[in-house]
Amino acid sequence: MGSLSKLNYKIISHLMGLLLAVNGGFIMLSSLVSWYYEDGVFNDMVRAGLVALIVGGAIMYVTKNHRKEIQKREGYIIVTFGWIFMALVGTLPYIFTGAIPSFTNAFFETMSGFTTTGASILSDIEAVPKGVLFWRSITHWIGGMGIIVLAIAILPLLGIGGMQLFAAEAPGPGGDKLHPRITDTAKRLWLIYVGYTLAETVLLKLAGMSFFDAINHSLATLSTGGFSTKNASVAYWNNQPLIQYIIIVFMFLAGSNFVLSYFAFKRKFQKIFQDEEFKLYSIFVIGLSVIAALLIYFQADVTLSSIEHPQVLGAFESAVRHAFFQVLTVVTTTGFISADYTLWTPFLTLFFFGIMFLGGCAGSTAGGIKVMRHLIMIKNGVLEFKRTLHPHAILPVRYNRKAIPQPIVFNILGFFILYMLSFIVGTLVFAWLGLDFKTALGAAASTLGNIGPALGDLGPVDNYGYLPAAAKWWSSFLMLIGRLELFTVLILLTPFFWRNR
Amino acid sequence: MGSLSKLNYKIISHLMGLLLAVNGGFIMLSSLVSWYYEDGVFNDMVRAGLVALIVGGAIMYVTKNHRKEIQKREGYIIVTFGWIFMALVGTLPYIFTGAIPSFTNAFFETMSGFTTTGASILSDIEAVPKGVLFWRSITHWIGGMGIIVLAIAILPLLGIGGMQLFAAEAPGPGGDKLHPRITDTAKRLWLIYVGYTLAETVLLKLAGMSFFDAINHSLATLSTGGFSTKNASVAYWNNQPLIQYIIIVFMFLAGSNFVLSYFAFKRKFQKIFQDEEFKLYSIFVIGLSVIAALLIYFQADVTLSSIEHPQVLGAFESAVRHAFFQVLTVVTTTGFISADYTLWTPFLTLFFFGIMFLGGCAGSTAGGIKVMRHLIMIKNGVLEFKRTLHPHAILPVRYNRKAIPQPIVFNILGFFILYMLSFIVGTLVFAWLGLDFKTALGAAASTLGNIGPALGDLGPVDNYGYLPAAAKWWSSFLMLIGRLELFTVLILLTPFFWRNR
Repeated sequence: MGSLSKLNYKIISHLMGLLLAVNGGFIMLSSLVSWYYEDGVFNDMVRAGLVALIVGGAIMYVTKNHRKEIQKREGYIIVTFGWIFMALVGTLPYIFTGAIPSFTNAFFETMSGFTTTGASILSDIEAVPKGVLFWRSITHWIGGMGIIVLAIAILPLLGIGGMQLFAAEAPGPGGDKLHPRITDTAKRLWLIYVGYTLAETVLLKLAGMSFFDAINHSLATLSTGGFSTKNASVAYWNNQPLIQYIIIVFMFLAGSNFVLSYFAFKRKFQKIFQDEEFKLYSIFVIGLSVIAALLIYFQADVTLSSIEHPQVLGAFESAVRHAFFQVLTVVTTTGFISADYTLWTPFLTLFFFGIMFLGGCAGSTAGGIKVMRHLIMIKNGVLEFKRTLHPHAILPVRYNRKAIPQPIVFNILGFFILYMLSFIVGTLVFAWLGLDFKTALGAAASTLGNIGPALGDLGPVDNYGYLPAAAKWWSSFLMLIGRLELFTVLILLTPFFWRNR
Repeated sequence: MGSLSKLNYKIISHLMGLLLAVNGGFIMLSSLVSWYYEDGVFNDMVRAGLVALIVGGAIMYVTKNHRKEIQKREGYIIVTFGWIFMALVGTLPYIFTGAIPSFTNAFFETMSGFTTTGASILSDIEAVPKGVLFWRSITHWIGGMGIIVLAIAILPLLGIGGMQLFAAEAPGPGGDKLHPRITDTAKRLWLIYVGYTLAETVLLKLAGMSFFDAINHSLATLSTGGFSTKNASVAYWNNQPLIQYIIIVFMFLAGSNFVLSYFAFKRKFQKIFQDEEFKLYSIFVIGLSVIAALLIYFQADVTLSSIEHPQVLGAFESAVRHAFFQVLTVVTTTGFISADYTLWTPFLTLFFFGIMFLGGCAGSTAGGIKVMRHLIMIKNGVLEFKRTLHPHAILPVRYNRKAIPQPIVFNILGFFILYMLSFIVGTLVFAWLGLDFKTALGAAASTLGNIGPALGDLGPVDNYGYLPAAAKWWSSFLMLIGRLELFTVLILLTPFFWRNR
């Protein structure tokens, strides 16, 4: 309580400078793509990279005499403004190359990238220079890296909605610690993240994608982002089912806890099978996909989905593939499109709207409410019935064989309520800005959950480009708060946060 | 914990018999209306009443040697099955008179009555015999009486979602107890309920309604039910604003805590102004009505609402009146119609959908989530931010100047989550049964919140008659669980409830 003192603005600025410089480095990397493919924007990309590097470096130089200590309050500021600064400087390649001349649009696209949402304002993606498209995919991938370090190292310290629980769980009970220092844990998970990205790239290339499409889709898969290099998204490969199956597998991995992947590489398979969140995640994905597959096969005309190509292996295979693809893309909050689910059946539209509220696993790059929180809420719900019947019994929620402290359960329930409130306010503001009933509901659920495609006029085959500017800024805000687990951003809007006592 | 023993089925049956007999008495009362207005169904009504009286009396006679003790588990059964038996026997007047020949429709109408929902399957209400219409209004009124005794005397003992809090609050701190015995408290509140009903009847009669319409609308107002005797509902009196203003005032009273009305009669006005729930309720009603009025006046064409009659006092008065009327009718979960809000503007449609989740005050006859729970959630939400910043601080939620025990706050958060889950499942089932996106969402929100009118094909000027039978039964189920605060009914569906240990 007594630890509140003057905020260390110098170290905050220093870290913002560092992020700008890192961004500059990645823009430079993207400029190499422009150079290789001769897309005509190499000079513009280099200039964008230099601006980011120079401004970032200058800020770092000016603030180099900072105190090293960071307090909790500075943590919230660094995380929130970190994402905002990244999104600001990330607009440079779009604006310098003229690929997205409007600042509002460029900011939307960059925020959608860094929050791994994948909502786009571009109507003709294939006309954008390759170097810029690569930068667009890279924003996803940097965002995903940020989310991993956030989930493992930062959010638990900031006490965000059950993330303590995940962090406590990550190393496992007793001697199963990944590594004593939490930043090393993050590094090891990054290694898995990089490894998966390379593996998917190779597999997609072997399955018939061009190398450029393969690397871009891998960057967008592992980060659960969803930007594609094709106007039709992954539906472009509807006559190459193998490509879609590969993406299905990697979406599943990207939406699961990376710590479990680490255990898999260490051959500690029983750790995976005992993980309650992973079990429920698998049940959700498989159960919902089977339901969707049956409904698509028996009730919907898959060819109705307008972006469906000639079927290769028959209608049943197609129904199963699209069901798994679309369920995974929504549950993991990736947002790739293999077919337009809003054209299947009215029930399936509502079905996909409903599963927008699930989210992937904690410790993955997925957004949304997340399976772990649903699990705790389900368990607590059952216990609440027992508590009603036996008010004097002490019935703690147990998760992965450990009793969870009450304040953490409280925090998770509070998170859910705040999420629903943000969704309702989000929807009302969209409606106020002119979106119709279904579109407003879908846009709020999709941006808050960092998914991408929504409903109505923002369905899988539409884009966010036609929205009024205010709706784009509101979308950017919802993407940001959703990605940073609400509390991290919204706490900055409370008056007591800024009081010095 | 150790108090679980064999359920006392005899007293459960005895009480069901009593409810049947009471219903029989009220059906007899309704037959007098048939007799007075010579509507041609007097004999049918008497026969329906006799069946209820005789069956009820027989059950009471057979089970007269029951043990007197009721345990907690029996409480849930009595409340849930009480409502179901009432709805079953309440169908007799509809079926015997042929006013609603289908059992499914009659059950829907009766459940809608006893749960004070006000959703109707009737397309031509004015063609129904007056005695049957009176019985229809009476089901609301009995339901409202049931809810008062439930809120004051039963739910707190059953430990339902924050109702302990209300009960603890009802007598007020220290010497302000209404009366030592809680059943006497219920009786005093009934007296207020009866008094308000008579007062509204007199005022409506004086304002120009027929006596029959006045008494029926009063029965439906005080119970926050919403059945009207006119096909156009209260829009029938759109050229008699005074009538609508009277109903506005009594809707406000019906949606507020009856204990506060008691304090008003005792001239303890400071108790009312200090009540935090009443303050927030007033802020909600006035704030939302003002917003709606401005939007209607500046953006919507009120004549668009298709059931609007020639305006008497100008467009601004009309906008204000309809805004207050429609906001109150939804917030208090009454469900009268003065205009079709779904035809105003797209934003207002979503606005009214959103406020379906508010609900009236605890200790009123209103359904829904209720203002008290929202207040606790808001307060806890703010504290959750503070707890995030200061994890070791002990910050209890304070309500009406008292710290609330953690388990009750927990219970309220759990209630909200269960409510949202019920809403989602409710919507999915409706969509499965063929309702479109908007209609399914509206129907689930409206039946669960005991409101009545919904959205889309179930908007204010539509009725539930065209729904498939399965959707009518599902609506009846949602009305029941919503009315009985979810836990009371749903706990009966858990396996551990029925285990004898």
